[in-house]
Amino acid sequence: MKVGIIGATGYGGLELIRFLHHHPEVKNIELFTSSDEGAIFSSKFGHLVTIHDTPLQKITIDSLAGLDVLFTSTPSGVTSSLLPPLVGVGPKLIDLSGDYRLKDVGVFEKWYNKQPAPKHIVEQSVYGLTEWNEKNIQSSHFIANPGCYPTAVLLSILPLIKAGLIDPHYLVIDAKSGVSGAGNKLSQTTHYSETNENFSIYKVNEHQHIPEIEQAIELFANVKTKITFNTHLVPMTRGILATTYAPVTEGVSNEQLTECLMETYKEHPFVRIVTSVSLMGTNRVKGSNYCDIFVKVDERTNRATIVSVIDNLVKGAAGQAIQNMNVQFSLPQTLGLDVIPLFI
Amino acid sequence: MKVGIIGATGYGGLELIRFLHHHPEVKNIELFTSSDEGAIFSSKFGHLVTIHDTPLQKITIDSLAGLDVLFTSTPSGVTSSLLPPLVGVGPKLIDLSGDYRLKDVGVFEKWYNKQPAPKHIVEQSVYGLTEWNEKNIQSSHFIANPGCYPTAVLLSILPLIKAGLIDPHYLVIDAKSGVSGAGNKLSQTTHYSETNENFSIYKVNEHQHIPEIEQAIELFANVKTKITFNTHLVPMTRGILATTYAPVTEGVSNEQLTECLMETYKEHPFVRIVTSVSLMGTNRVKGSNYCDIFVKVDERTNRATIVSVIDNLVKGAAGQAIQNMNVQFSLPQTLGLDVIPLFI
Amino acid sequence: MKVGIIGATGYGGLELIRFLHHHPEVKNIELFTSSDEGAIFSSKFGHLVTIHDTPLQKITIDSLAGLDVLFTSTPSGVTSSLLPPLVGVGPKLIDLSGDYRLKDVGVFEKWYNKQPAPKHIVEQSVYGLTEWNEKNIQSSHFIANPGCYPTAVLLSILPLIKAGLIDPHYLVIDAKSGVSGAGNKLSQTTHYSETNENFSIYKVNEHQHIPEIEQAIELFANVKTKITFNTHLVPMTRGILATTYAPVTEGVSNEQLTECLMETYKEHPFVRIVTSVSLMGTNRVKGSNYCDIFVKVDERTNRATIVSVIDNLVKGAAGQAIQNMNVQFSLPQTLGLDVIPLFI
Amino acid sequence: MKVGIIGATGYGGLELIRFLHHHPEVKNIELFTSSDEGAIFSSKFGHLVTIHDTPLQKITIDSLAGLDVLFTSTPSGVTSSLLPPLVGVGPKLIDLSGDYRLKDVGVFEKWYNKQPAPKHIVEQSVYGLTEWNEKNIQSSHFIANPGCYPTAVLLSILPLIKAGLIDPHYLVIDAKSGVSGAGNKLSQTTHYSETNENFSIYKVNEHQHIPEIEQAIELFANVKTKITFNTHLVPMTRGILATTYAPVTEGVSNEQLTECLMETYKEHPFVRIVTSVSLMGTNRVKGSNYCDIFVKVDERTNRATIVSVIDNLVKGAAGQAIQNMNVQFSLPQTLGLDVIPLFI
Repeated sequence: MKVGIIGATGYGGLELIRFLHHHPEVKNIELFTSSDEGAIFSSKFGHLVTIHDTPLQKITIDSLAGLDVLFTSTPSGVTSSLLPPLVGVGPKLIDLSGDYRLKDVGVFEKWYNKQPAPKHIVEQSVYGLTEWNEKNIQSSHFIANPGCYPTAVLLSILPLIKAGLIDPHYLVIDAKSGVSGAGNKLSQTTHYSETNENFSIYKVNEHQHIPEIEQAIELFANVKTKITFNTHLVPMTRGILATTYAPVTEGVSNEQLTECLMETYKEHPFVRIVTSVSLMGTNRVKGSNYCDIFVKVDERTNRATIVSVIDNLVKGAAGQAIQNMNVQFSLPQTLGLDVIPLFI
Repeated sequence: MKVGIIGATGYGGLELIRFLHHHPEVKNIELFTSSDEGAIFSSKFGHLVTIHDTPLQKITIDSLAGLDVLFTSTPSGVTSSLLPPLVGVGPKLIDLSGDYRLKDVGVFEKWYNKQPAPKHIVEQSVYGLTEWNEKNIQSSHFIANPGCYPTAVLLSILPLIKAGLIDPHYLVIDAKSGVSGAGNKLSQTTHYSETNENFSIYKVNEHQHIPEIEQAIELFANVKTKITFNTHLVPMTRGILATTYAPVTEGVSNEQLTECLMETYKEHPFVRIVTSVSLMGTNRVKGSNYCDIFVKVDERTNRATIVSVIDNLVKGAAGQAIQNMNVQFSLPQTLGLDVIPLFI
Repeated sequence: MKVGIIGATGYGGLELIRFLHHHPEVKNIELFTSSDEGAIFSSKFGHLVTIHDTPLQKITIDSLAGLDVLFTSTPSGVTSSLLPPLVGVGPKLIDLSGDYRLKDVGVFEKWYNKQPAPKHIVEQSVYGLTEWNEKNIQSSHFIANPGCYPTAVLLSILPLIKAGLIDPHYLVIDAKSGVSGAGNKLSQTTHYSETNENFSIYKVNEHQHIPEIEQAIELFANVKTKITFNTHLVPMTRGILATTYAPVTEGVSNEQLTECLMETYKEHPFVRIVTSVSLMGTNRVKGSNYCDIFVKVDERTNRATIVSVIDNLVKGAAGQAIQNMNVQFSLPQTLGLDVIPLFI
Repeated sequence: MKVGIIGATGYGGLELIRFLHHHPEVKNIELFTSSDEGAIFSSKFGHLVTIHDTPLQKITIDSLAGLDVLFTSTPSGVTSSLLPPLVGVGPKLIDLSGDYRLKDVGVFEKWYNKQPAPKHIVEQSVYGLTEWNEKNIQSSHFIANPGCYPTAVLLSILPLIKAGLIDPHYLVIDAKSGVSGAGNKLSQTTHYSETNENFSIYKVNEHQHIPEIEQAIELFANVKTKITFNTHLVPMTRGILATTYAPVTEGVSNEQLTECLMETYKEHPFVRIVTSVSLMGTNRVKGSNYCDIFVKVDERTNRATIVSVIDNLVKGAAGQAIQNMNVQFSLPQTLGLDVIPLFI
């Protein structure tokens, strides 16, 4: 397979390279740029010296046409205008940005405050939450890869909502992310001296992943709801931990919640249900495509605490994108992704 | 004033020394130990070389009797048996442990799984949440200094509950703490390589600060409620950020919540109401006795997000203890504590 | 005293505010800006809310003329043109930048690659290494405050060179600094995700502090030498540790080196000679104006390892600047600086 | 191949599992314990849930006899008595501890202060610095895997010493390591709150890797010398950066040093010569088996600064051990190790 990447200099792009390099079905990895044509990639990224020393290519329809699959890992607002000419005619497309996730372009415009992609193009994309949308992904040429927070949250709560074990109308989701989620763009809030040894909250009630999560709950669990969702910045590079609070349906036990999760994911290698909280932590999935989930009911209040962890750059971005590529090409989902978490 | 500290080698104790050293009314600081009698304190703690080179003293009733005030900063289960002989007869007592915070000794036994202090002694202690209990603290010889989490949580939600602006019966409190909250006792969960670059949740629904918070809500806001409360470990040394979610009373606006907080604390120098979330962060209070609070209503769900930050070792421990000492001795609350946060 | 600060938004400037705020002789702190006139300082820096809410003032000769002392904490190349009109006529000046440290303007031009200040102005400045230049500082109106690295290095090696105990002609100085030394200017090398969990070397053999150290060795120890000096970036915010290697003069013992250091600094409260390496570490001086020094001879090679630690923002910048102000005004050196290190 | 690991719960052992799991020639990985027989490995290490859930086996000669290769990753002083019965008769042995590195058992006793292994057994081991000892490794049944510091240092200086381009008699080596080098044993110096935000020096002139480096310089470059070597602790988990200072031979240019390194390693995939210091950093090799090297001559002093970085747990331990296994079994050196560094 011949694979192309637009946005390789971003952290999502660098992770695509890290995994695709070892993917047994991938022969070529071509990197495209709108600005840096001809630049040797490894001259900017020392970790790739002797590994990827080839020059960046100019983005042209011709240069992209020959690819089997194209990953776009760009800031929101870029692929909305870049991809339409390629949809259906060129390589299979996997977009890691937010431009094609929201089916309602008005909702996109409101939450992203950006010009949406054309409605008829958005409608052709398939939401790439692999474990929940496998059939549609397999038959699709155009994947909208989920956001990092929605991936962590949805994998942990969808089974419980769908099974009617928790009340979907009072979901409080408190999410925490490492700093790499903010990408490589410089800003005061990601400046080392002001980020290190600091834990903060941001975008209170305004994060653009809110409508994405609500849309997916309706799509996969057939429930319309409004969630409470907040995001925090953790002084570490990788990892997301999402803590969701929900009332438990009358008479439902802790065991039922755990069994529901285990049953849902028993055929899915990248989702692990953890039964001891002492084994939960973002470092347990660091560098890997795993999502670990833990649930516990508080008998005092009859509310469930649902916890999930992922590596935001892998299962939350590049890893799930490659997992979707594997599905599109009817390859084993774990191909090229069968990597053990670093732990330390 | 002649001040004594039991438990000086703990992080709370070291912070007591850091502030008391500059307290204009404190002449002597004497450190007591049950094990290390005669050891030169600075031979263990390099940062105190030339500052505190005096030897540790043995704990005896006589040695303590001559003090004006005694701070006990020990693990739970120590002062329950150590302090009773001194209550009312010796120096003023300020206990930083959890042994005297819960008035119901049965509740203490259940959540701490330890032998409680004698009921009649517990009843003599006053809960030292300074801003809310000033009069009782001033007239008391025996202060139970609040826990770190309860301090951060209570200061931010008590005004809103007392004013009836939020529903106290569906409080979801998601708290996050730096690692120093675990003290200097060695454990795998605080071993650098496994704590660094890892965000985790612990004691799910089982933290001993739950009954302390519920007791204080009843004491100060006259409401009996059961809270949902969880704690997370942040890979940083100092700081607590608590995010509380609560339904807002019908018709109450964001401005009313902010004004209620401002009005409540307008005479209290250590509590700051912040109106821009970009100014909130644990590093904004690092090393200081401040508690910063921010509140915002989500119009989509009519739920409030209430955020507060403190330095767990200062306002959450040693700083509030000294603030209470100032109140007990009718000194200005800021004496010895008027320190600007480090920020970086 | 009425104190002014130009460059208050930098980390050195923020530390000046942190200490001057508590200085018993300082009545007013006025902040000046070339760009942000009228802006409320605390609206940018949350940690100063309720502490310093006054607006930034425009820089004019008149506005500065009324000050008793002016601190300039700006990037190199600013005060070389800003200060000349004020020298000798206005307030006492303490410049924290590198613009006036090097007496040979040609050397400045070569190492800073910037236009130097006028030679006759540079000649009027006094190098503010407090412990070594007290008399000249006391009688001077214009202090060139030392660089962070030179402060850590010089305090540890000057006594040994001056006493002839080590060979000054083969000094290898390996220095390490926290990221705050790079200031608050955004760059890829201080972007959290790329700085965190990364230890790197920079400016190999090219750091502008090299001529400053060599000039001071000649000035204070009367030895002309060329040093080997390299700098590394440590993934932490504050602190410098400098490790210097030097041949020991024939027959000189470890004890002699330690005694020489102790004798040199016995009257200097901010320099501490540490005799156990287990007590050495940047966190032992964090947030304080202390410089801790440790020396040990390797009998196998007869070379000395000389180690010193400082907080780069305090003894390496704002703290030493205030120490110099105290000397200029014949106040106790510790006034406003008598703060215990944070340790954790 | 059937592979065994003794000491799997250590960080070196966990890294062996991480890489061997993906090694195409490895069929079984069996973990042995002296204490925890029968324990499910993943019940302690959450990152291995569903990946390695098999129980730990008891160490017996029989259980080890059936292995093709046995890795021992234990604290020093364990394999000196554990391995002798297996040498030559059982599986190929690769010992990651320090017990068999020093050929002179008296030197071992002096620097490790432990009982050495039997002299005739030590003599049978081969020092596993792969790039420098390939032939002997290939024909050996018993490898003493190099220490982390010696690996970083030796790879960078051996070519230059052997070629006579630098003076080996005044080597000053200033090394810095992440905290994982201290292993998972709990101690105050690796307790998060006291390690975080702290840079320190330890074992001044007394590190046990000193004789290992001197022995290897004699073995591979045929030079007897005494080095100055010190080690520092960096507040990060992984990575070693070693900075070596040496006088350059008269008339030798910077280009000659760089070319010598490039020529030496041109056939060695895991050693990369970097020509821009901006590409050097421990994160450029994080999680991988690469060693990056940079050299620069200071014309002012005619001394060279030689810098190298490795991941202490990979090229400095488990990675090089597997590289040696590949050589022993005449497999491509990169088999199972062809992993891209994480960078962030």
